[in-house]
Amino acid sequence: VRPRHGRRHNLSLVRQTLYFDGPMSRADLARATGLTRVTISDLVTELLECGHARELGTSSDVRPGKPSTLIDINRPGLQIIGLDLTAHRVLRGAVLDLDGVVLARTERRVDDVAVVDLADVLDLARETVALATAPVLGVGVGTPGLVSEDGMVRSASNLGWTDVPLRDELATATGLPVQVANDAASAARAAYTLLGASDDFLLVRIGRGVGSSLIVGGTQLLGAHHAAGEIGHVTVGNDGGATCRCGKVGCLETWLSAPNLERALTAADGSAEPLVEAGTRLGIAIAPVIAALDLTEIVLSGPEHLLTAPLVEAAQSTIDSRLLRHPDVHVAVNVAADPDDIVLRGAAGLVLSSQLGVI
Amino acid sequence: VRPRHGRRHNLSLVRQTLYFDGPMSRADLARATGLTRVTISDLVTELLECGHARELGTSSDVRPGKPSTLIDINRPGLQIIGLDLTAHRVLRGAVLDLDGVVLARTERRVDDVAVVDLADVLDLARETVALATAPVLGVGVGTPGLVSEDGMVRSASNLGWTDVPLRDELATATGLPVQVANDAASAARAAYTLLGASDDFLLVRIGRGVGSSLIVGGTQLLGAHHAAGEIGHVTVGNDGGATCRCGKVGCLETWLSAPNLERALTAADGSAEPLVEAGTRLGIAIAPVIAALDLTEIVLSGPEHLLTAPLVEAAQSTIDSRLLRHPDVHVAVNVAADPDDIVLRGAAGLVLSSQLGVI
Repeated sequence: VRPRHGRRHNLSLVRQTLYFDGPMSRADLARATGLTRVTISDLVTELLECGHARELGTSSDVRPGKPSTLIDINRPGLQIIGLDLTAHRVLRGAVLDLDGVVLARTERRVDDVAVVDLADVLDLARETVALATAPVLGVGVGTPGLVSEDGMVRSASNLGWTDVPLRDELATATGLPVQVANDAASAARAAYTLLGASDDFLLVRIGRGVGSSLIVGGTQLLGAHHAAGEIGHVTVGNDGGATCRCGKVGCLETWLSAPNLERALTAADGSAEPLVEAGTRLGIAIAPVIAALDLTEIVLSGPEHLLTAPLVEAAQSTIDSRLLRHPDVHVAVNVAADPDDIVLRGAAGLVLSSQLGVI
Repeated sequence: VRPRHGRRHNLSLVRQTLYFDGPMSRADLARATGLTRVTISDLVTELLECGHARELGTSSDVRPGKPSTLIDINRPGLQIIGLDLTAHRVLRGAVLDLDGVVLARTERRVDDVAVVDLADVLDLARETVALATAPVLGVGVGTPGLVSEDGMVRSASNLGWTDVPLRDELATATGLPVQVANDAASAARAAYTLLGASDDFLLVRIGRGVGSSLIVGGTQLLGAHHAAGEIGHVTVGNDGGATCRCGKVGCLETWLSAPNLERALTAADGSAEPLVEAGTRLGIAIAPVIAALDLTEIVLSGPEHLLTAPLVEAAQSTIDSRLLRHPDVHVAVNVAADPDDIVLRGAAGLVLSSQLGVI
């Protein structure tokens, strides 16, 4: 049982109101938040002083008395750095504005060796920060693998990493606040904040591996050990399957990861059957999750040439056929827009959330 | 974006502190909650006036100045009514104290007809209220089936009910605040509040049907349509199975519901094989839920003669074999104590939560 931090909560409330509802006067802010005019005035002063908010001149409203000054989140005055470590043979960086728009890009080729050099990631981060044209709020990183609460990459086989203190190394290299999340968690954040996903969905991220992240009632669930979403190595069905790189048989990843699916498509010589099989296996794996959580949406994120109609329709029909039918409940399987930048943009969203208290 | 209800939140905080930490002085309450002495004094006055708290005489602490009066939740001054509509051919009621101890019991036999008469439930409620020996805080009901947010039983095939406004009918019949929840949700509440379950678990309730409820990070998840936990009619595996009463093939319920499992055990003539098969199917069904949510515990609740070692061990080994192994993560499959009263006690917990703001 802990007391609420009233002032911190109220600062967050003001930032969120400005971020989502746009410029408004102190009086409008008081009405929108339910806080007193005196409290709002005090909070706005603090936000102006730390550069999170700015004054936009006076309102054009014709009211008795003096015209009121409009306050907004300091959109042009702050930028965010996003990094995406999930692409094949390339590390990607970007400078983004507070609305998640990419303003500038960087990248660094990496050899196809077993272990990605942390120094390359740190160099890329410094190089990206140097491209910013306004003060930087922080650095957000989407990485493959399992990320602990303190920003340590516990294990990421695609990077060849075990226990790499990515957050702390990046913070030292850039002098900025850093947020690190699994790529599926980053993508789910972008889907929710920027791409219009519903309040209760599972995002499934298909890349070199398969991961997922849950948003439930508008809250991202990270799990008791920060390991939520690790569905790539859940056994699917009970009829065997291929041997996975993890050593088990019939993991979801053996059907659905991009490399495995591409290999199967090549072998199938033009047939869409591997896409149907992958969608079906996905549906089998996640139907219990949908039922246990009463989700309304599944969002798929990954390469556009794989997330095509045969796969999506097979996932949809498998889910529909394996769940109890409620007349007023439909679970939609959707493909997330912006596959190339969704991890970058979601990582930037983490910074917005941690630094500005915006969702 | 909504302002917090400061006073309501603080009243809740004081009640929770008293409920979990026991009698203490106003000064101790101020220290424990982080609120000022003036605020605490004001909140305690309100709680004393509405009968939620009581004074216990003065503390025996030797301190300079006048001795301080101890405040406690009004444990002997309030009681709760719990109802359990899930048993076969009998509706069960009880009077409970605020710690979830059963003080008195009632029951009402019902004919094995297709539809349970709502009037019988209302009579039982009135009869149970009449047994209370202190003011009653409210009525909590655990019912089979799907319950909507407004306490309507949307569909409960075991009661023969569709769209029965159970909460409103009981409120009218008793004049008391009423909380209605699915039996699995009630049992999960009891497991969490009274029986020591962890902060991240799935409770699986095995009765005439199969249901479940999730507690994640200490919060019960009810779902976008209040239909979370409906795992009984998820298809398990992809090798067929028996035809379920819902019309689909291979639902979890066909292996795991108490009637189906008892039938299989009778046919198996002493072999434990149906228990092993039921545990295995349960493990197959819930492994993806564990992975997606990073749960630490599975709690099984149901008849003691079915939730025996063969079933529990098969569930445990199936889960272990179908998930990615993390060296520091173990998911324990446990059987909930107190199977006969867990729904009643959890239903009472709902009242405690809604009326006193206690978890």
